[in-house]
Amino acid sequence: MSVDKRLHDRKFVRTFFTTPTADSEKDDTAAMLKKSIQLRGMEAPDVWVPDNEDATAPNMRDEGAENIAEVVAEHGDEFPGEIHPRVVWHRDSPETRYKGFQHMLEIADPENGAVENIDGFVIPEVGDLDDWKKADEFITIVENEHGLEEGSLAMSVIIESGTAELEMGRLRDEIGKPSNNLERLFLLVDGEVDYTKDMRAITPTGELPEWHELRHNTSRAASAAGLIAVDGPFDDIRDVAGYRERMTANQAVGQIGIWSLTPGQVVEANKAPLPPKEGYWLIDEDGEEVELEDEGDVQAYTGDKLSLEEDGDEYVLTVGSDEHVLSHEELQEKLVDLTAYVPSLDDIVDSMEEFEAAKEAGQGAIAMTRATTVSIDGVEVEISSDRMWDEATYQALQTPITLFQDVYENRPDQHDDLADIYGEDVVERAMEVGN
Amino acid sequence: MSVDKRLHDRKFVRTFFTTPTADSEKDDTAAMLKKSIQLRGMEAPDVWVPDNEDATAPNMRDEGAENIAEVVAEHGDEFPGEIHPRVVWHRDSPETRYKGFQHMLEIADPENGAVENIDGFVIPEVGDLDDWKKADEFITIVENEHGLEEGSLAMSVIIESGTAELEMGRLRDEIGKPSNNLERLFLLVDGEVDYTKDMRAITPTGELPEWHELRHNTSRAASAAGLIAVDGPFDDIRDVAGYRERMTANQAVGQIGIWSLTPGQVVEANKAPLPPKEGYWLIDEDGEEVELEDEGDVQAYTGDKLSLEEDGDEYVLTVGSDEHVLSHEELQEKLVDLTAYVPSLDDIVDSMEEFEAAKEAGQGAIAMTRATTVSIDGVEVEISSDRMWDEATYQALQTPITLFQDVYENRPDQHDDLADIYGEDVVERAMEVGN
Amino acid sequence: MSVDKRLHDRKFVRTFFTTPTADSEKDDTAAMLKKSIQLRGMEAPDVWVPDNEDATAPNMRDEGAENIAEVVAEHGDEFPGEIHPRVVWHRDSPETRYKGFQHMLEIADPENGAVENIDGFVIPEVGDLDDWKKADEFITIVENEHGLEEGSLAMSVIIESGTAELEMGRLRDEIGKPSNNLERLFLLVDGEVDYTKDMRAITPTGELPEWHELRHNTSRAASAAGLIAVDGPFDDIRDVAGYRERMTANQAVGQIGIWSLTPGQVVEANKAPLPPKEGYWLIDEDGEEVELEDEGDVQAYTGDKLSLEEDGDEYVLTVGSDEHVLSHEELQEKLVDLTAYVPSLDDIVDSMEEFEAAKEAGQGAIAMTRATTVSIDGVEVEISSDRMWDEATYQALQTPITLFQDVYENRPDQHDDLADIYGEDVVERAMEVGN
Repeated sequence: MSVDKRLHDRKFVRTFFTTPTADSEKDDTAAMLKKSIQLRGMEAPDVWVPDNEDATAPNMRDEGAENIAEVVAEHGDEFPGEIHPRVVWHRDSPETRYKGFQHMLEIADPENGAVENIDGFVIPEVGDLDDWKKADEFITIVENEHGLEEGSLAMSVIIESGTAELEMGRLRDEIGKPSNNLERLFLLVDGEVDYTKDMRAITPTGELPEWHELRHNTSRAASAAGLIAVDGPFDDIRDVAGYRERMTANQAVGQIGIWSLTPGQVVEANKAPLPPKEGYWLIDEDGEEVELEDEGDVQAYTGDKLSLEEDGDEYVLTVGSDEHVLSHEELQEKLVDLTAYVPSLDDIVDSMEEFEAAKEAGQGAIAMTRATTVSIDGVEVEISSDRMWDEATYQALQTPITLFQDVYENRPDQHDDLADIYGEDVVERAMEVGN
Repeated sequence: MSVDKRLHDRKFVRTFFTTPTADSEKDDTAAMLKKSIQLRGMEAPDVWVPDNEDATAPNMRDEGAENIAEVVAEHGDEFPGEIHPRVVWHRDSPETRYKGFQHMLEIADPENGAVENIDGFVIPEVGDLDDWKKADEFITIVENEHGLEEGSLAMSVIIESGTAELEMGRLRDEIGKPSNNLERLFLLVDGEVDYTKDMRAITPTGELPEWHELRHNTSRAASAAGLIAVDGPFDDIRDVAGYRERMTANQAVGQIGIWSLTPGQVVEANKAPLPPKEGYWLIDEDGEEVELEDEGDVQAYTGDKLSLEEDGDEYVLTVGSDEHVLSHEELQEKLVDLTAYVPSLDDIVDSMEEFEAAKEAGQGAIAMTRATTVSIDGVEVEISSDRMWDEATYQALQTPITLFQDVYENRPDQHDDLADIYGEDVVERAMEVGN
Repeated sequence: MSVDKRLHDRKFVRTFFTTPTADSEKDDTAAMLKKSIQLRGMEAPDVWVPDNEDATAPNMRDEGAENIAEVVAEHGDEFPGEIHPRVVWHRDSPETRYKGFQHMLEIADPENGAVENIDGFVIPEVGDLDDWKKADEFITIVENEHGLEEGSLAMSVIIESGTAELEMGRLRDEIGKPSNNLERLFLLVDGEVDYTKDMRAITPTGELPEWHELRHNTSRAASAAGLIAVDGPFDDIRDVAGYRERMTANQAVGQIGIWSLTPGQVVEANKAPLPPKEGYWLIDEDGEEVELEDEGDVQAYTGDKLSLEEDGDEYVLTVGSDEHVLSHEELQEKLVDLTAYVPSLDDIVDSMEEFEAAKEAGQGAIAMTRATTVSIDGVEVEISSDRMWDEATYQALQTPITLFQDVYENRPDQHDDLADIYGEDVVERAMEVGN
């Protein structure tokens, strides 16, 4: 089997939600774990990460490991997502690595009753692949000591050094070698704060750099090795718009998942990669894309950066301070250029079904037409554009549907939410298309 | 010989033009091939690709392979570009790979009379280098079976997976090993639609992501292994301005060639990397670069985002809504910053000749001066700036000339077009400079 | 010891200043070297590079090598930075490589009296790691011939080919192998002019492309191999604002050092990565960040792209042509989003001390509050925002302090300048924090 087939139950992970494992300020140090493990529906993440590393004070981590075992033993059966505790690790510290090993031994000890619901471990601060292999080996020993099947515990890593970024590119060569069990690899998670330290980057305000190349390279490594790419934490938890923008940018490089720090962020991140309930039109008003208002028959522009007047046979379209005098046909072309349509789940299913029917009938490529009437300053203009779909287009545009299907199959606790959002009928059709 | 010397006849490929090989809807299924192979001059591509993969329906591809052989046998001698058919291939499907091998055997069979004019094959959907080597081996067998010299058929690949993107970086280590013939590699072509699928990227409107890193990495791999980088198809064939913008961006990463879907796109892409006939000035009007109007003695700004007034000894320059009060010297500096000159072919030849003369006279570096008079709102200002040229500058700016010379030597059918554009005299000087 | 520990005296290099080694037009061909080696304080670079390659005419380079030895013998003891001459080298020319070897033998000959003050050599135009190893081997022979300790001469390389860019990523695997002395590697310096030639990139105006990926990859390779990343020359020496912008962008990818062509550029580049004397507030006025005016109690906006009015209980904030009607709380949130604070050295030391004290007291994470009053059109609004600091944040934001300490320890000649800029007291606290 090819190394780039995704081997785990989940083909997509939208959400990676961390919870401190032991808080010395609370009477019950496991209180936060107990709260998180009871999340359900859109508030419950695809992957829950009891965080026995950075989120928990160093002197509380032994207790944290015990808390994880205890809480998962009690509530793990009912938790709808996967559970992957993060343990301590550092490429430069054998002491830290040994500590992480001990915590894994503890958490996975069958006597503690949690291990059936522990899906794997998250290893931070990895260096080169030889370092990843040390963690893999410890997990193999944990499995062996506790009578678990070799390879049954997944391993996810946090990419937070230039070295780890480079080494991801070599995974294809290493996974499957007889002396490791790296097939257990699951998530590649970017950790931008530590990465910034490792790269010694400085910004005037102390804001994190963009690290676009890191995100590209993580997504690419996931693609080449059959893994799943997840972006790091978005610190400003009040900034919902910023979190959404970050996710849109991530999705465009194939990094569908993201870290969540609060249940509110989990809700946003669970929904973000799913297509909208209703499609809508965008128009580029002098460099910025804004939504047109759906007035039933027409899509109306209500801003003040574009204006349009009819002048005899001609039209005067003003964009910012640029005036364009255009014929009716030129105006239509210009508006086709300026507008774009964001399809709903329903629209995507329609297009896929249409293409499938055409393929059935022996056609290799068909034109998909998108038409509407745009209204600017009361002047209405019909526009229409075609896009050629062939097999490759079909497959490239199928990703949101594959994602939807993966979510639906793995998260029964979200069925009601999905039906509420999209309606039963659309959900049913989305589950059937493309199979 | 160093692996990064380009080993093929062409040092540059501007255009990669695909044509379906068999259309079941037409009486003569080879009609489109026959039309394409008769293109000449600016409408004829540097590399013509009879496309027996995605552009042709799966059940027509056996006939497509025969059509290629037949049409190239009849018209190949006169075709001015190279001919590299694309065959089927997939890293995950031995069935597809074997089909591709059979089509190559058929197309290159000397009994079909086409092989003297077949320059190589294009292999899509490659994975890691071991997969590339399978294709290389099949081509070696084709050569051996048909009595062709080993390595005489070129091989180009489509980079449309994260794996292939990563593996390109290892070509230097593999080309030249005794058990392969990877020296036959010619073009590295990005295939962004399938790449988007492989990376599982999602954009709200379904538009392709930018994939800037992919294009950088393809160009870099081409540089390191002596190959030629070509960008993938630009789907919106009516959008000439968009196609040009894409090519300008590609050229800035060293990806000079691009896929063309129509003869119209071929014309654009053949011309795009060549310097303009006439140089012209640009000015930055509040973030956007626009052309100044050449009024002979002055270069005039005719937009409305910049304004300039004389006020006693001072000048008031308004850029958007920012007002700058400047002395005459400060104004000159500001205008030097805001303007840029796009040199013509003639200008580039002049500068190179000037540097060559200086070098001859023992100078390592000289200042090249660029001066003009800019007019804004009727206020005229003389500006002048220097750029130091040393050997490195000279060589870096020589690329358009090397490209021009490669085109001129390999495409006699474009001599008339080039003379029409530039004039015989400039063409002649451009062919002599730098040698 | 891990390969990614920086092994050299300097952990940071801000400035890489080149000087021609022999000018045939001057009576004393070594005049420029003599001038440069006497620079002190902010005008003296961290690394001085007598440039016996591109900056010196080919027929003057034998004399250049002698000049270096002579000038360094005479003045090297007093020079406050490190001295790393650049010699000739080319991956494609054994003749050039042999010439470079001869020049290194000459410069490092103890009989010439310079070698105690020669810290290493800069090797341009390297190709793959096998080529780097040839240079390393020559330096080993130079050391052996001249009775120097093996590995005592550093080696820096110029990354100016796609091949070298790719190969940097493999340094971790090669440094430390028994048959090389690559531990001597020190700086990875981008050379964008030759890189542009090697990548065959074209821009309409002949300007250099951005090469963002190159800079990312150089910084990442430096991180993975314990080296220091330095950006290439900025040609337009009059454009101080442009040089600063470039440095800010470089710092955000971890490339703290930059080439300097003049003592004026050295001053700028020595100061650029150090925090400012006084902190200041920025506001985003419709896409562009501008500084607020510090009026003691309030930070005042003085531009004309933002306006603010009180209207009963509400506020009308206009950004460009967008009007927002906001409650007091919404206005505060909006202004928190639009503003950012650039901390001074003093501020950074304060925050670090505060975090250290909290850690001492057993806290893993604390909120750092930043508050001020913003005034727009005379309307004053108090704003306040928190940022959570944990160990990772602390370490990531420590880079400017580590840099400051490295500068202070290695550059006594800049102590007065630093005290002038920051005051003795702040300097002293900055030297103590974080240790």
